[in-house]
Amino acid sequence: MVDNAAEYRIEHDTMGEVRVPAAALYRAQTQRAVENFPISGTGLEPAQISALARIKKSAALANARLGVLDAQLAQAIADAADEVIAGTHGFAEHFPVDVFQTGSGTSSNMNMNEVLATIATQKLGSAVHPNDHVNASQSSNDVFPTSVHIAVTAALIDDLVPALDHLAVALEAKAEAWAGVVKAGRTHLMDATPVTLGQEFGGYARQVRLGIERVRSALPRVAEVPLGGTAVGTGINTPAGFPQLVIELLQQETELPITEAADHFEAQANRDGLVDASGALRTIAVSITKICNDLRWMGSGPNTGLGELLIPDLQPGSSIMPGKVNPVVPEAVLMVASRVIGNDATVAWAGASGSFELNVQIPVMGTALLESIRLLSNSVRVLADKTVDGLEANLERTTALAGMSPSIVTPLNKLIGYEAAAKIAKHSVAKGITVREAVIDLGYVERGELTEAQLDAALDLLSMTRPTQA
Amino acid sequence: MVDNAAEYRIEHDTMGEVRVPAAALYRAQTQRAVENFPISGTGLEPAQISALARIKKSAALANARLGVLDAQLAQAIADAADEVIAGTHGFAEHFPVDVFQTGSGTSSNMNMNEVLATIATQKLGSAVHPNDHVNASQSSNDVFPTSVHIAVTAALIDDLVPALDHLAVALEAKAEAWAGVVKAGRTHLMDATPVTLGQEFGGYARQVRLGIERVRSALPRVAEVPLGGTAVGTGINTPAGFPQLVIELLQQETELPITEAADHFEAQANRDGLVDASGALRTIAVSITKICNDLRWMGSGPNTGLGELLIPDLQPGSSIMPGKVNPVVPEAVLMVASRVIGNDATVAWAGASGSFELNVQIPVMGTALLESIRLLSNSVRVLADKTVDGLEANLERTTALAGMSPSIVTPLNKLIGYEAAAKIAKHSVAKGITVREAVIDLGYVERGELTEAQLDAALDLLSMTRPTQA
Amino acid sequence: MVDNAAEYRIEHDTMGEVRVPAAALYRAQTQRAVENFPISGTGLEPAQISALARIKKSAALANARLGVLDAQLAQAIADAADEVIAGTHGFAEHFPVDVFQTGSGTSSNMNMNEVLATIATQKLGSAVHPNDHVNASQSSNDVFPTSVHIAVTAALIDDLVPALDHLAVALEAKAEAWAGVVKAGRTHLMDATPVTLGQEFGGYARQVRLGIERVRSALPRVAEVPLGGTAVGTGINTPAGFPQLVIELLQQETELPITEAADHFEAQANRDGLVDASGALRTIAVSITKICNDLRWMGSGPNTGLGELLIPDLQPGSSIMPGKVNPVVPEAVLMVASRVIGNDATVAWAGASGSFELNVQIPVMGTALLESIRLLSNSVRVLADKTVDGLEANLERTTALAGMSPSIVTPLNKLIGYEAAAKIAKHSVAKGITVREAVIDLGYVERGELTEAQLDAALDLLSMTRPTQA
Amino acid sequence: MVDNAAEYRIEHDTMGEVRVPAAALYRAQTQRAVENFPISGTGLEPAQISALARIKKSAALANARLGVLDAQLAQAIADAADEVIAGTHGFAEHFPVDVFQTGSGTSSNMNMNEVLATIATQKLGSAVHPNDHVNASQSSNDVFPTSVHIAVTAALIDDLVPALDHLAVALEAKAEAWAGVVKAGRTHLMDATPVTLGQEFGGYARQVRLGIERVRSALPRVAEVPLGGTAVGTGINTPAGFPQLVIELLQQETELPITEAADHFEAQANRDGLVDASGALRTIAVSITKICNDLRWMGSGPNTGLGELLIPDLQPGSSIMPGKVNPVVPEAVLMVASRVIGNDATVAWAGASGSFELNVQIPVMGTALLESIRLLSNSVRVLADKTVDGLEANLERTTALAGMSPSIVTPLNKLIGYEAAAKIAKHSVAKGITVREAVIDLGYVERGELTEAQLDAALDLLSMTRPTQA
Repeated sequence: MVDNAAEYRIEHDTMGEVRVPAAALYRAQTQRAVENFPISGTGLEPAQISALARIKKSAALANARLGVLDAQLAQAIADAADEVIAGTHGFAEHFPVDVFQTGSGTSSNMNMNEVLATIATQKLGSAVHPNDHVNASQSSNDVFPTSVHIAVTAALIDDLVPALDHLAVALEAKAEAWAGVVKAGRTHLMDATPVTLGQEFGGYARQVRLGIERVRSALPRVAEVPLGGTAVGTGINTPAGFPQLVIELLQQETELPITEAADHFEAQANRDGLVDASGALRTIAVSITKICNDLRWMGSGPNTGLGELLIPDLQPGSSIMPGKVNPVVPEAVLMVASRVIGNDATVAWAGASGSFELNVQIPVMGTALLESIRLLSNSVRVLADKTVDGLEANLERTTALAGMSPSIVTPLNKLIGYEAAAKIAKHSVAKGITVREAVIDLGYVERGELTEAQLDAALDLLSMTRPTQA
Repeated sequence: MVDNAAEYRIEHDTMGEVRVPAAALYRAQTQRAVENFPISGTGLEPAQISALARIKKSAALANARLGVLDAQLAQAIADAADEVIAGTHGFAEHFPVDVFQTGSGTSSNMNMNEVLATIATQKLGSAVHPNDHVNASQSSNDVFPTSVHIAVTAALIDDLVPALDHLAVALEAKAEAWAGVVKAGRTHLMDATPVTLGQEFGGYARQVRLGIERVRSALPRVAEVPLGGTAVGTGINTPAGFPQLVIELLQQETELPITEAADHFEAQANRDGLVDASGALRTIAVSITKICNDLRWMGSGPNTGLGELLIPDLQPGSSIMPGKVNPVVPEAVLMVASRVIGNDATVAWAGASGSFELNVQIPVMGTALLESIRLLSNSVRVLADKTVDGLEANLERTTALAGMSPSIVTPLNKLIGYEAAAKIAKHSVAKGITVREAVIDLGYVERGELTEAQLDAALDLLSMTRPTQA
Repeated sequence: MVDNAAEYRIEHDTMGEVRVPAAALYRAQTQRAVENFPISGTGLEPAQISALARIKKSAALANARLGVLDAQLAQAIADAADEVIAGTHGFAEHFPVDVFQTGSGTSSNMNMNEVLATIATQKLGSAVHPNDHVNASQSSNDVFPTSVHIAVTAALIDDLVPALDHLAVALEAKAEAWAGVVKAGRTHLMDATPVTLGQEFGGYARQVRLGIERVRSALPRVAEVPLGGTAVGTGINTPAGFPQLVIELLQQETELPITEAADHFEAQANRDGLVDASGALRTIAVSITKICNDLRWMGSGPNTGLGELLIPDLQPGSSIMPGKVNPVVPEAVLMVASRVIGNDATVAWAGASGSFELNVQIPVMGTALLESIRLLSNSVRVLADKTVDGLEANLERTTALAGMSPSIVTPLNKLIGYEAAAKIAKHSVAKGITVREAVIDLGYVERGELTEAQLDAALDLLSMTRPTQA
Repeated sequence: MVDNAAEYRIEHDTMGEVRVPAAALYRAQTQRAVENFPISGTGLEPAQISALARIKKSAALANARLGVLDAQLAQAIADAADEVIAGTHGFAEHFPVDVFQTGSGTSSNMNMNEVLATIATQKLGSAVHPNDHVNASQSSNDVFPTSVHIAVTAALIDDLVPALDHLAVALEAKAEAWAGVVKAGRTHLMDATPVTLGQEFGGYARQVRLGIERVRSALPRVAEVPLGGTAVGTGINTPAGFPQLVIELLQQETELPITEAADHFEAQANRDGLVDASGALRTIAVSITKICNDLRWMGSGPNTGLGELLIPDLQPGSSIMPGKVNPVVPEAVLMVASRVIGNDATVAWAGASGSFELNVQIPVMGTALLESIRLLSNSVRVLADKTVDGLEANLERTTALAGMSPSIVTPLNKLIGYEAAAKIAKHSVAKGITVREAVIDLGYVERGELTEAQLDAALDLLSMTRPTQA
């Protein structure tokens, strides 16, 4: 909010007069909200403030075309909105309303209406009214949730999808590079039949690409906006044709695939599309949790862990244990995942709290979602650039361990049956000998149940990493 | 499990001998699991047991075609599976393994292998082996998760989608019937501009139809199954062409749009598709929470609440307050929503717990999801049949309240501006008079700022439920 | 519910006549509920049904003493309740109402009232009325939540606390046995300074004992019951002194530390004490998650993992990989933890859904909590008996790994500073030599910065597992 | 972080040289962390930074007393810490490390070590080393979690408990003022027997006071700190007596009831005490959700809702509906509750992610908890001051509604039985007449089943708000 508030001016609204910092572009209602909500100290995300300004611009131009507003007045509002979008006036200073405010976001909508009215009045030279002009054909109840949906849609498309793609590309490069690196498979954390390191990284890459699919399949329902419904979904006080026109202008303004709500009553009363999208982010958090945990475990050691991967050394790991290297980036990403899980719980809880024509927990939903998208986008880029790209395989170790798994006995099932193979595996573990040695020790070759050639073919590690070839 | 266990027989597995109830179709490994996991007392959902049997049937036939199994032996397994699917042997009795078992579901997979081996042995007259024959070309690690995905896919398509459609149809009928019933809109629970009851129910119907879209958009990723990956995703011990063939047979067997995993390493190590689907169910739970709460509030009263709807009287509401009627079905549905929310948290938590080649919380994920789908499917049908269909509007009440909302002053914004309109609204509330009376009382007509005709047009309630007509 | 329903009798309630199975002890209202709620197919937990019967018994006796009921009639109700508590009539058969019913549990309360009225009528030879007699001085709104609190209190005290104690004892035995077994510490999964295996198990035991403390600190608020508040907390239709007397009798009947609500309006309208208790269970789930994961990782291998512990071999681990042993019990316990996390989300969500004088999601809260307690109690016993008791340390491995951690350089900080020590640690890893060798290789002894005696003292592993001794 | 970074200096750590802004008090490791974690743009909460500085001060003084550090050097560190605590150097500028960093908080611990080393070096005139001096006898692994526990303990005791008490006092004042205001009770949202408005507010107050009890019962386990365990809980590199002494000094420094961990291995590896405390906050969020929803519903209207309370008018409610007043503060508090629910999910998820000797999601846990406490503390104060204090009862409305509830028939149960009373209640609703009229209309007085005096006594509303008097 405007800091140097030694000087005030008097503004009024329908409740009476209010002292407002002299330098503030906002007016009475914003000031009331600042005083009513000293809760978190944090305002809306700038991305949402910009989205709100874009809506105001499109609405002003649509109002002019449909005869609701004078063309010059509308242009002054649009120009004012462009200044806000460009950051000319600063977000924190002139948009000081706390996230934890009225659940419809009316205070933030009025904050925008007041700021644009002030700037447009200056431009136009005659009074532009926050409600009658800037907010014409609109209500907080349709524009505020629309601003959330637009900001979320933009962040998903422009930030998260490219960041996930960036990570997938990094993982795919490793998958290709390590296509031939055999290593021990592990199920239940226990020694299993071999895989290639490339197969594992290919799986991670696919997980990330599925995350992109999840985002894309949620998008149509996020991009469907309530704009045009005004107070309660009926479109009261809008001219005929307004929703179609304003959304068309908004598509042009944002270059996003925004659509008009198929049913304005559903779209205004519920934020289910946000709950849905949050579920996609939650699934992505689950995916990167698995990937980061695998990376951490494969990189564990250097001497007492699995030691299959070398994770890039980015900073001293310990304030007391000299020379320690830790997987710090995967840890940071895992904390992001925990945060996204929590934000998702917030979104679902808030999403279930609507009554009749309105959900009244929209600001916290917007903030939680935008935070989740930003954290995920930033952190998967860091993961790609500072960890995945620099991973090195400890080939000596992966090869050695692959051959040590007693589960490499598995191909023998087809030759001598599961029960005989189990005897061999147990014998190898009990005696501390290789599976090959156990087969011979137990007399299978001697008795002619297996030839050495069959044995060698069966125990070829690389051939265990694919289906049996004809 | 088999009850009358006075008599036992001795079975063996690779660990040694086990006493098994004489009448049990299962064998040693099942019995071990029964003894190892006395935790919940509840086994897998029958739908999943059936799905597992279908996989076994398809695998046996695929194995026969690809030369892995003798055709007669495979047919005996397939016939045994058909008996299990038909429920000939009872699910609870012969599939006694607890849900809370090994995280791969190996105990349940072996339970099925053993039961089918026993039945198939009887049919064939020679020994069918649980591992070497029934489980040929398979591993618990691919077939068990596949059985979850198939059961979930089937339940979504066959149970949930039709149940949601059934509810949507009931809501749409009300939307149509009440298209002309004007009522007070409410935002922030406070009096707002009017809507029609039909608009509200149309919104509910759309919410439910969006739930169907959510399910459908999650389906492709649920229907993608790891079958063919065997132990670790490599397909070790499968003949070339096995996944394609077994999945083709399974499509025919189940009539479901099952597809082979695009990447077997992703598909085997992760259950993200289930987390994703659970998110869709969670959003549906959020939607029906809103709908049921609205119904409860509109039906509140009869004398001290809103009293806009009459909810069918299904049972005495109170053990102490005579004649009380409660919205019991919406309450039951709300409890289902709470359960679905919880199951969703279980699924996400479990879904994040995988390592390397396997997630080891598959049984609890399957059970939680199948329970959620069953509860949702059953409860939304009950909601449609026992509550929505029988709803009656209290027309006298809705009409009266619609006109009493001070927010009907809203259309005057366009004539006299927001600030003047606010004065009128406040005057009407303070004096306890109608908005029309307040306009006149404050002299707007007298002063010629408004004509009575303009006033009447502006205050027409039904016209407030749609955009301004040209 | 009563199965063989070929024959019916006609019962009535305030809404009219109902066909009820001829053999049913219940009457019209139960039958209506059976027909109204075909949702989950599952009734209340038997523990809660028993608790409800105990309340009815205590209430009947209190009513007799306070002159509300005839003494013989009251005794007939009490005797009938004793039969229900003893399981004489079967829970599933005569208490068929679904969990997902009216949110107050009125249907289950009336089910109990009807069953006891039927039995008591038979005993007494004259009509006992479900509402006027069995339910006298009560309402579903106070007795049903009280039955949940009693059942939960009993399950916490009688089942969960002893089970946690049992696990703690098992862990403490290992802590003592392994007090001298040095092993590598691990932080961030990376090699750290040594600990003893006993220290780790002592930590696990303490975690479990803290779980007991958590339960105990939640108990007073769970044991505070709304009984006596009747319909809305006011105690309408109760004689003076009723709550005090009925709770005194209930304390005797249950031998539990039940107390009367300090404020009946808080106690009746909210189930916060259950939310609170669920939070304690959730924390216990978090604790056992950590313990089970540590056990699984220390037991990982046998050849490609950490291999520090041998986890008892309870059943064949894989249907395809012969001889595989998996940590199946820890996995089952981890799935229990996931379920408890989900149930906790259900309880919190349901707990927030009350309005005015009543929460209307009580049945699902009771069921979720009782399930969580049962799963935790059973599973931690299995964990103690089938896994912890049989754990064996791989001493050769723990000793070898302890000395291989480069972090054993840490005590040198005090002698040569953190930066020099870091150089040594890095040199040891880079060259693949021991820390001792690295110290010498880098010339610290030669240059006289350290004597060999100092070096040997500093590098003593066991002394690293405690503070520096004077 | 330090803004005007046109000029740099070169710092080094064990990994080599780093360019650091010339004006920065921090050094190489902080700078690396700034570059490694460009994720959220947000650092630790100032409360935690202060707590960390207090630990450093206490540790320096303890080290001096135990002969580990020179007394003057220790005093220089302590003095430097005092400056940081006093905010002399600014938190944001010199503590720029992102919350999403290494999971142990090592980067933030080193940030503090570096800043204090820089300041202390200036004071002392000779080099103070971040690791060897400032961090002496410490590790990130014990000091960082200790700083979270201290900050959380302080925030609970100093902020949340007084704020909850403040709200309870406000609610209790209303409970007293409205002790005689009869109103309709509501269960299942339906008309029930009467209560007083004072009883309802007394219940809310008790809920809030129980919240204080919940915090207090969690406190002992939050106040138990791992300090003294250093790297892995063993206390390696601490002098004998260090934990006891440093914690004693810390108690004096903080005036908080901090205690040494009963078991350092439990205390270092797990953050269960934070999960536990978060559960208490979650229950408080559930409590205030119920309270705020009740306030919103009782204040709904003014004309189409329940209209029993007048909620203070703080700001214009709508940008389109003139004169609308909304319950904006309860809505803000409800959004806080949603956020706390989400933060709680984050804390539980993070709390379950530890392995062996360390949990590596400590920073996100600390931040989430401190945010929850701050939001709750601030918002319940606003609720008390801006809403509860100014609430007014609409006495005309409460009285009228109380008498209109058909459930006031309930006292007749005792005179004519539940079934006859039900007939009366239904008759009253069907005919739209009062219960008294229905009694007479149905002939109960005429037939002598009830005298008018009995009827009047039974239907006295105020006497229905307490147990029957002898």
